[in-house]
Amino acid sequence: MGPRARDVSGHRRAFGDRVRELRTAAGLSQEALAEHAGLHRTYVGSVERGERNISLDNIYALAEALSVAAGDLLT
Amino acid sequence: MGPRARDVSGHRRAFGDRVRELRTAAGLSQEALAEHAGLHRTYVGSVERGERNISLDNIYALAEALSVAAGDLLT
Repeated sequence: MGPRARDVSGHRRAFGDRVRELRTAAGLSQEALAEHAGLHRTYVGSVERGERNISLDNIYALAEALSVAAGDLLT
Repeated sequence: MGPRARDVSGHRRAFGDRVRELRTAAGLSQEALAEHAGLHRTYVGSVERGERNISLDNIYALAEALSVAAGDLLT
């Protein structure tokens, strides 16, 4: 599957929703989160929309930028 | 970074160790886990060795095959 293939099980969408929830709770813009995590703003946007099959390294980058445990992003 | 790039932060290694711990606790071989998860045996082996920047879809496939929550693999 490509990075934007259909999210059959909804895990990508749930992950994106969780990132958005924690980002807004922290009072961060997508741009600010992206900068903290060393990622591109448009990439963070696509993650939040559930379009990305994000990798472990980027899950940890986002978790560290949000000051949460990585496992908390997969609940 | 490629899929086997250096694991600077140790997250890939920690993930692999956790998968191996839960797999052996469940009494499963790598081959059995791979079959349950719909993945290749050699891929599961490389994940357990911390060589892979595994994606969200495959994290969920392994978690479901191990009957654990996906977040439990990232602790």
